[in-house]
Order: sequence, then C-alpha cells, then structure tokens
Amino acid sequence: MHILVTNDDGVLAPGLLALAQAMRELGEVSIVAPEQNWSASGHVKTMHRPLRVKEVRLHDGSRALASDGAPSDCVALALLGLVKQPVNLVVSGVNPNANIGHDVTYSGTVTAAMEAVITGNLPAIALSLDGSRVHTASLDYAPAATIAKRIARKVLEKGLPQGVFLNVNIPYLPLEQIKGFRITRQGLRVYRDALEQRIDPRGQPYYWIGGEAPTAIPEEGTDYEAIANGYVSITPLQLDLTAWSALKALQAWGWE
Amino acid sequence: MHILVTNDDGVLAPGLLALAQAMRELGEVSIVAPEQNWSASGHVKTMHRPLRVKEVRLHDGSRALASDGAPSDCVALALLGLVKQPVNLVVSGVNPNANIGHDVTYSGTVTAAMEAVITGNLPAIALSLDGSRVHTASLDYAPAATIAKRIARKVLEKGLPQGVFLNVNIPYLPLEQIKGFRITRQGLRVYRDALEQRIDPRGQPYYWIGGEAPTAIPEEGTDYEAIANGYVSITPLQLDLTAWSALKALQAWGWE
Repeated sequence: MHILVTNDDGVLAPGLLALAQAMRELGEVSIVAPEQNWSASGHVKTMHRPLRVKEVRLHDGSRALASDGAPSDCVALALLGLVKQPVNLVVSGVNPNANIGHDVTYSGTVTAAMEAVITGNLPAIALSLDGSRVHTASLDYAPAATIAKRIARKVLEKGLPQGVFLNVNIPYLPLEQIKGFRITRQGLRVYRDALEQRIDPRGQPYYWIGGEAPTAIPEEGTDYEAIANGYVSITPLQLDLTAWSALKALQAWGWE
Repeated sequence: MHILVTNDDGVLAPGLLALAQAMRELGEVSIVAPEQNWSASGHVKTMHRPLRVKEVRLHDGSRALASDGAPSDCVALALLGLVKQPVNLVVSGVNPNANIGHDVTYSGTVTAAMEAVITGNLPAIALSLDGSRVHTASLDYAPAATIAKRIARKVLEKGLPQGVFLNVNIPYLPLEQIKGFRITRQGLRVYRDALEQRIDPRGQPYYWIGGEAPTAIPEEGTDYEAIANGYVSITPLQLDLTAWSALKALQAWGWE
C-alpha cells in the first residue's frame, strides 16, 4: 500500500508528522505538503503561476516534499506525476481545529481530500482534531494518529463508494476517554465573524475579518454533536452539491 | 431592492459591468469585487492578514469598491458592514467560462455565492458564460445580462429555499438562438490536467499544472448537457456535502 500524506498547516506541522508515522505502519508513505500555512484557503487549482517543490526533512528525519501551492495543489502535483509510484489512499491532516458544518468548503484539509477524488479518483480521508478550545502550547496528536490508522486500515480494506471521501473529526481527549465512532451528517456551523476597521500609521483604513470563534448547532446525528459528546465523527462527503429538494420547486416557477 | 454584485475576474472585468447594469434595472446596486483575477481560487476566508478596500470607477463611470481579498472575502466584507444598506440578493459574475460539474468548489464566481448564503443567509446567483471556446478578443455579455435580469427578478419575487443558491451557466449564443431554460443537476467534469516540468534560467525545476481544457460527461439533466444543447442551465446548489447514500454502508462496517 502506498499512502500520500498532506495537510494545510505546512509540512513541518506536528499533526502531519504524527499522521505520517501512523500511516507508515500500514504501508509506504509519500509526503507532499505546503511549505506554509493555508488554513481557510479553499479549493485551489493554481494555474496562473508555476509551482515550486523542494525536499525537506521532518523532525524525525524522514523525507518530504514541500510546495508553494495550496493543499489541493500538493495533491494534484503528487497524483499528476511528481510522485512516481501509484497511490492507493490520500490522507490530509491532522488539523489542530475541527472542520465541521460549513467549514468543509473553506478548509484546506478537506479540499485536499476533494482533490484526491477529482484528480486521482482515490479514496481520501481528511482528519481534524477538535483542539481549538485547548490552552496548551502543543497538542497531543497521539490519540488522533491511532484513530487515523484504524480508519485508514478500514478504508484500505473496504474501499469507499465512487466519489465519496471521509471527513473525520476527533475530540481532544485521551484515547481511553473517546467513546467510539459515529457515522454522521454534515452539521450547521454558526460563524460569529465581525468586521473590524482599523487605521494604519498613514491614516488609511484596513479591515480584519475578526469576531468570535464559530459555534455550531448540536443537532442529533451531526459531526458537531458527535465530537461534543466525545465520539469520533466520520462524515462521508461527496462533490455533488445539487440541492435535489429544490429541483421541483424551481421547475414549477415556469421558464417559457 | 438592493443587490450586491461581485465576481472573480476583477472589478474592471466587462462581465461585471454588464451584470451591474442589468441589475440596476431591478433596484439599487452595490459593487464589491476583487481588484485582480481570482479564478479557481476556491472558498477563502482571509484571516491571517487584513484586507484593503479602495474606491474605483467602472468604465461607465459608476462607483465600485475593490478589495485585495478573494471573491468570498468581498461578499463577507460587504455583508459584515462595509456596505451599510441591507442587501436582498447577491449576484456573482458574469464569468467568461462555464462553471459546471466539479468546477463549483474551485470557482471564485460560485464560492462568492456560497459566502452570501453562509454570511448573509441571502439568496445568491452565480452566473457564467460558456465562452471558453470562442476565439474573439472580447465576449458579448449582452445576452447573459438579459438572462441574469430575468433570473434575478424571479428569485427576488419567489425567494429561494433555505440554504440554496443558483449556479447559472449560459451558452454563448445570440439571445434569439438560446432555446430556453433547464433546471439541472451538477454534472461530472472531466479534467485533463497534466504536469509540466520546466527548468528555470538558474537550472532549477518548476512545475505548471497544464494540460488540455476540461470536458464533461453529457448525461441527461446535467448542467453540461443543457448548455451543450443551447439552453440556459440553472442548477440549485446547497452547502451540505453529506453523501447520504454512503451512510448506511459505513455504519455497517462495524466500529466497536
């Protein structure tokens, strides 16, 4: 088995190292990840400029490729030929914050998994730890790495339906306190963004998208409800955004 | 009625001017758009740096705001308070190339409409012209503007279901040759990207994501089939990516 590992926090992030080490227990691992942070960067295909790639060493001495593209570019680069050996699975993460609800189209972690489906028609897993409310300098990624290995092994064994990838969110708890796994639906994020106007030293205005951290609606069966209750959330996602329930209503509007 | 207009080609693009002029026949128009091209830039929320906004004049002398953020940032800026008057509808485009199938998560045009739903809970319409196979220096946006006005008027009159926005693709034809409107589902894009390695003047490699223009699978009822046959394609999209059909299969894997 050959597993491609990427992330959106940058190739030297501790979440990527933990994930890569866990994946090495399942097969051979290649790493192509951004050289810098691309959080909330969206699903990017860089076509207006060329991309650079350089070899770097992770903190355990292992070799990785770093690109100046987005996470989705890293996956495209790898699958279009930068990585010579055929890839069986793409894993992205481990992100230090949850990616739930509407986060999925913004998230570099999740859009990297989307790219694996589009460019490679491959199974893919995005992994995020719900670490945003934790006030420590460094998160412990060991429980998340163990869970990533368990899920990746199942995906390699069973496969995923055509066009489906997994968005996994993991509560920040010691392994023995995690209650189990829940197959969930995408919930509803509640963003609390606010615009802050400031004045620069030359008297000109500039704007921060600020505000408070997002919350979510804890509906039963959702990603958010699962992690809030101590379960690993596994949400199968697809790239078809058609609002099927709206088709009939729109047809009835009359367009002739 | 107050309509916010944006795009992903930059505030001075002719497709935006044509769209803004058409929307002025339906109500008051505010324009907040990127100062430069953001094609295939994805759904971005810029949080690591502040955003600048400047006033510019379009080619018809009308006033617009240009930001150094992505299209989705422009919509967030406007709806979070940069535009004081409440907005009733957000329209994005007119993009010079179709946004069909998997294009929707990459597209700045479409992700701007997503942002209107998320930040403003507003009806939104992304509009794209299938102009990529046209070999003229400047596209004629007049038919697209007329169609945009017709669809926007209907949306203002009827509203859209909660969380749903419209992805509209328009064939590049004179108005009288457009056969009508089709309510469609998102089709399947076929990308033909290829990696091109080149060597810079200093002997170092760099990589272009190149290849041929994408095609699509002409299945009945899809966005692509509609425009290929001379119809305007109206696809209702939503932000819930849950792969409902995969939930049961995954539950059956056994996770205890």
